[in-house]
Amino acid sequence: MYFASDNAGPVHPQVLAAVAEANDGYAMGYGNDPLTAEVQAQIRDLFEAPEAMVHFVPTGTAANVLALGCLANPWDTIFCARHSHIQMDECNAPEFYSGAKLTTVGHGDKLDPKVLRKKIAATGVLGVHGAQRGPISITQVTEFGQIYTLTELAELTAVAKDFDCPVHLDGARFANALVALNCSPADMTWRLGVDAVSFGGTKNGCMGVEAVVIFDPAKAWEFELRRKRGAHLFSKLRYLSAQMKGYLAGDLWKTTARQANDNCARLTAGLKDAGVVFDFEPQANMIFCQLRRDAHKRLQAAGAMYYLLDGPLDGPDENLLPARLVCDWSISDERIDQFIEIVKG
Amino acid sequence: MYFASDNAGPVHPQVLAAVAEANDGYAMGYGNDPLTAEVQAQIRDLFEAPEAMVHFVPTGTAANVLALGCLANPWDTIFCARHSHIQMDECNAPEFYSGAKLTTVGHGDKLDPKVLRKKIAATGVLGVHGAQRGPISITQVTEFGQIYTLTELAELTAVAKDFDCPVHLDGARFANALVALNCSPADMTWRLGVDAVSFGGTKNGCMGVEAVVIFDPAKAWEFELRRKRGAHLFSKLRYLSAQMKGYLAGDLWKTTARQANDNCARLTAGLKDAGVVFDFEPQANMIFCQLRRDAHKRLQAAGAMYYLLDGPLDGPDENLLPARLVCDWSISDERIDQFIEIVKG
Amino acid sequence: MYFASDNAGPVHPQVLAAVAEANDGYAMGYGNDPLTAEVQAQIRDLFEAPEAMVHFVPTGTAANVLALGCLANPWDTIFCARHSHIQMDECNAPEFYSGAKLTTVGHGDKLDPKVLRKKIAATGVLGVHGAQRGPISITQVTEFGQIYTLTELAELTAVAKDFDCPVHLDGARFANALVALNCSPADMTWRLGVDAVSFGGTKNGCMGVEAVVIFDPAKAWEFELRRKRGAHLFSKLRYLSAQMKGYLAGDLWKTTARQANDNCARLTAGLKDAGVVFDFEPQANMIFCQLRRDAHKRLQAAGAMYYLLDGPLDGPDENLLPARLVCDWSISDERIDQFIEIVKG
Amino acid sequence: MYFASDNAGPVHPQVLAAVAEANDGYAMGYGNDPLTAEVQAQIRDLFEAPEAMVHFVPTGTAANVLALGCLANPWDTIFCARHSHIQMDECNAPEFYSGAKLTTVGHGDKLDPKVLRKKIAATGVLGVHGAQRGPISITQVTEFGQIYTLTELAELTAVAKDFDCPVHLDGARFANALVALNCSPADMTWRLGVDAVSFGGTKNGCMGVEAVVIFDPAKAWEFELRRKRGAHLFSKLRYLSAQMKGYLAGDLWKTTARQANDNCARLTAGLKDAGVVFDFEPQANMIFCQLRRDAHKRLQAAGAMYYLLDGPLDGPDENLLPARLVCDWSISDERIDQFIEIVKG
Repeated sequence: MYFASDNAGPVHPQVLAAVAEANDGYAMGYGNDPLTAEVQAQIRDLFEAPEAMVHFVPTGTAANVLALGCLANPWDTIFCARHSHIQMDECNAPEFYSGAKLTTVGHGDKLDPKVLRKKIAATGVLGVHGAQRGPISITQVTEFGQIYTLTELAELTAVAKDFDCPVHLDGARFANALVALNCSPADMTWRLGVDAVSFGGTKNGCMGVEAVVIFDPAKAWEFELRRKRGAHLFSKLRYLSAQMKGYLAGDLWKTTARQANDNCARLTAGLKDAGVVFDFEPQANMIFCQLRRDAHKRLQAAGAMYYLLDGPLDGPDENLLPARLVCDWSISDERIDQFIEIVKG
Repeated sequence: MYFASDNAGPVHPQVLAAVAEANDGYAMGYGNDPLTAEVQAQIRDLFEAPEAMVHFVPTGTAANVLALGCLANPWDTIFCARHSHIQMDECNAPEFYSGAKLTTVGHGDKLDPKVLRKKIAATGVLGVHGAQRGPISITQVTEFGQIYTLTELAELTAVAKDFDCPVHLDGARFANALVALNCSPADMTWRLGVDAVSFGGTKNGCMGVEAVVIFDPAKAWEFELRRKRGAHLFSKLRYLSAQMKGYLAGDLWKTTARQANDNCARLTAGLKDAGVVFDFEPQANMIFCQLRRDAHKRLQAAGAMYYLLDGPLDGPDENLLPARLVCDWSISDERIDQFIEIVKG
Repeated sequence: MYFASDNAGPVHPQVLAAVAEANDGYAMGYGNDPLTAEVQAQIRDLFEAPEAMVHFVPTGTAANVLALGCLANPWDTIFCARHSHIQMDECNAPEFYSGAKLTTVGHGDKLDPKVLRKKIAATGVLGVHGAQRGPISITQVTEFGQIYTLTELAELTAVAKDFDCPVHLDGARFANALVALNCSPADMTWRLGVDAVSFGGTKNGCMGVEAVVIFDPAKAWEFELRRKRGAHLFSKLRYLSAQMKGYLAGDLWKTTARQANDNCARLTAGLKDAGVVFDFEPQANMIFCQLRRDAHKRLQAAGAMYYLLDGPLDGPDENLLPARLVCDWSISDERIDQFIEIVKG
Repeated sequence: MYFASDNAGPVHPQVLAAVAEANDGYAMGYGNDPLTAEVQAQIRDLFEAPEAMVHFVPTGTAANVLALGCLANPWDTIFCARHSHIQMDECNAPEFYSGAKLTTVGHGDKLDPKVLRKKIAATGVLGVHGAQRGPISITQVTEFGQIYTLTELAELTAVAKDFDCPVHLDGARFANALVALNCSPADMTWRLGVDAVSFGGTKNGCMGVEAVVIFDPAKAWEFELRRKRGAHLFSKLRYLSAQMKGYLAGDLWKTTARQANDNCARLTAGLKDAGVVFDFEPQANMIFCQLRRDAHKRLQAAGAMYYLLDGPLDGPDENLLPARLVCDWSISDERIDQFIEIVKG
């Protein structure tokens, strides 16, 4: 019963098969191989962006910070939600790669366009003294499992454009949002004014690969230099590309994302039925809820894995423990139902 | 006929099998899984260093620059050969990760202890004005395919110790040197005073994994923070560990290294027989030689892959083209012999 | 009628005289001159810290960021008030020099020990993922002109010590606080657990000099290297030392600070008498108040200089304009009274 | 008898008088004062560059590294002489401010256009792997007291332009070169293709001020942000501008430079007369010569100040000690003659 994270599950067999298939004979290193070119083209097609730059990196943090490095100056500030991965979980990597400062907008996981506007407007007004207006980074799905609607995204990008600020989309769970919104990658990105995307694979069935998509191809060479300087250029890059190929084939990426979201919906329904209180209405594959202490004890005894949270999600009742449960594509209905039964006690 | 690089060949089946074997069920991310602990322990055993820090990263550059970041202060200079990977092929990643300057010692690929001593002695004499004495980075096998004997390594580390400078060993081709010297990992590292090692896997049969071994465990936490801040912490780290497990099992790493060296010896013998002039006597799996223009044309026509070099290795006779040929473990005798035959014309 | 900033006034004649006096003959550069040693010793005496490191830099930002660079690791976060100079007015210099992230504590200019404790406690709990606990930076006098009592400072340093976090005191207006508290420099710093101080001179009568005092002398060489690497090591350093000598002579620094505070008190009394509403009760040499629009117009017409503020200090009544008025030592009673008269209309 | 450095002498009285004159009343900080604008305009006139960006910083290292930061990308390499200030005497400040690597050209103080061309041509040929071609930094007067003729400068800038590399001129001793060449500032800079100049004041009579001149005004805002982020923006900037005003008035800067050069010529003639061997023919205000041991002892006994050098300038005869003697504008004929007499013994 692994609900600790969507990085705890196995690699999808189709992804592993694609890696094995790529393991045939010789290929030039560093991305100068035909497979890499083929998969880059697939992603450009997927995003309906024939000119876009597409490159593969092994971690989500690398995707985020290399993209942000291309969008931010060292004297800028990057606007993001307080509960965003770049602010909470990347150990100063964004600052290291960009030189920029991070400015948190609001107190939660979701950017509010009004608060964003106010924060940007208040930035750079001191002339050379303070940090300057830099990129906005939007996390879709958010760190608390919420999904921005296309309208909400459009409101945020509109604010950004009003101030000529570029927009980055942290899509570590891009697929989970996309299938929930039932839109196209283009709809969720450049059509709204997004400039750079971290298109996640790792959390959704891959071993360790993310695509960075930057719609302005003029940034491509800079990105390559930043990737190399950051020590993220794989020599045997075809094995990153192969993962992505397996991930895209037959829309596997959507299938696994739907599966994960469906798993989460099943778990949500069961827990609600069991009377569990939710901090947020789950919209993708993550649940933030309050587990009763006795339920938690039974779950622990049964070997269930998930995180208890502190601080901002603390429940008022000390008998209720705030927990995060993440469903990946691979978790079985049996395990989900078993978890629910244990909660019911 | 792929002699372009030892990153052009396939992943060894045993490594891929280990990855597939690891792809079973759930495991905590970020290295908090039992497989990672198991393989870390194996490497500590291998190095006879029960206290050593062992961590896995996906690229050789990451291994080098994270290790150097732990050894160098931002106001130091790192001493290295002019033809070293950190100086020539890492696009300022060493400077980015350490803040330090690089000082090249000599003009070739191998550090001379006398020149090293002179360079270190001349450093830091201006008090606060110049860069300070920092780590020495030794590449074993060197970029031109040469191997330091244990005595030569000892002379270098002795110079370093005379000045209290820490020592890093860039072992992207660690195995190729070790089997040629027929010594143990401990003999080639900490017994000589090496403080940190990049223990390469990628060039010798893995997909993308290197172990960083730092013998002073007090550096371990700093390393972990630097790895995370550098965006090199894999979430599904078990798949790096699995590669390394497959690489170590049954001493595969030595077997593939010996195979690569043997392949190189076979190619060397054939080329010598064909009258080819060598710039260096090959000692591991790399050849730097002068190809006649007509031979090069025939090789190109036959689809052989290798690099022509410029500059420092330029031959005096313009009819001779300086070339680099690298043998990996996988290249077959047939391909080697075919290459030789084409050279003979 | 210059109330724009305490950097708008002239250099005190005694400081300029000390510079002129130092301009006699030859002296070794870079601080290797007897005058520098003499003034360093004076500051050690002043702080009753015979072992402390004392160095001079030309700007307050340099003092802050070099001190913080010595206290913070690149993976740390620095805790500071939202309205602190390092957060609002140093254009990412703290991030540049330390690599660390800044975490704001509360929404104002003053750190609350309870909020500080909560913020520190919530930091580093994610292991390697988030920024680690780093130094606390306290601004005395705060950016809104408030003074921490010694008790308040002790509460903050106690929190810091509970978490082994070092403490930096941004004392750009150190003297203004000290004379108001009527304590000694030691009382306000190391006796409370402060590790490093930016001891300001520029705002209080000097031309451009701040002393950095770090009480652990083991940090001295690192500081010197950071200062040089930051390009802040003056070649003709005696002219910084000379300013500081003139500043200290006969306790000029206390005299000018008292004068500035007294000037502010006179202005405060007059404005209160004129019915002006204050956002904070002035405690040092700065006033944050609401000027009526008509008064503002008359002041502008008369050539008075001060800043109108936005955002966080916005008054509810649009007829009231939030303003910052800063008094330096040099402003005359006539000018103050003239300002008050104009406000009265 | 101070020949240690041109930073050992006093500030010229005219410069100090200008500072005192500026110390009248109130002025906006951070360069928003009329005096600063006035002196910026003077320098634009001086360089016949009405659009150029002109800003003042307190140290020569700051001038160099902020200018280089505007010209170099973090993945570039900066080309400079081995014996240049940025390579030998700035403790990694160029790397810190630019992120770039430094590549030394040749082994001495002067760039040879053929060697420069070869070094640039050999850079960037590895695609993304190595550092990319960045700015060329030329030091005029060189660290060994040599002056590039305008023809020599033109040859260097032509090489740079062939590769689209920007050009920086480190003019810490700009004036000494200019009066020796009897040309205009424009002749020695933008007319030859120089993009950015560190126009030194400190070594030639000021207290601590250098002007950075960048001829492309599009870089101006970036420079201001870099200066602030580097903590080099003076709050009371008028006192930097005042020094520069005093320095320019009545062409004082040329007068002091001529005086320094003449002092050096007098010392040179006397030492030659005394049989002293010179390593370079002095062209500006610096002498690199071999002092006999007995002469050195007599000079030390008489309190003469200068540096003995090691390494690259070592004389073959151990009885000869390589020495650097620097003349500033202030040294008197009597002191020079006294020094010569002591050498003669």
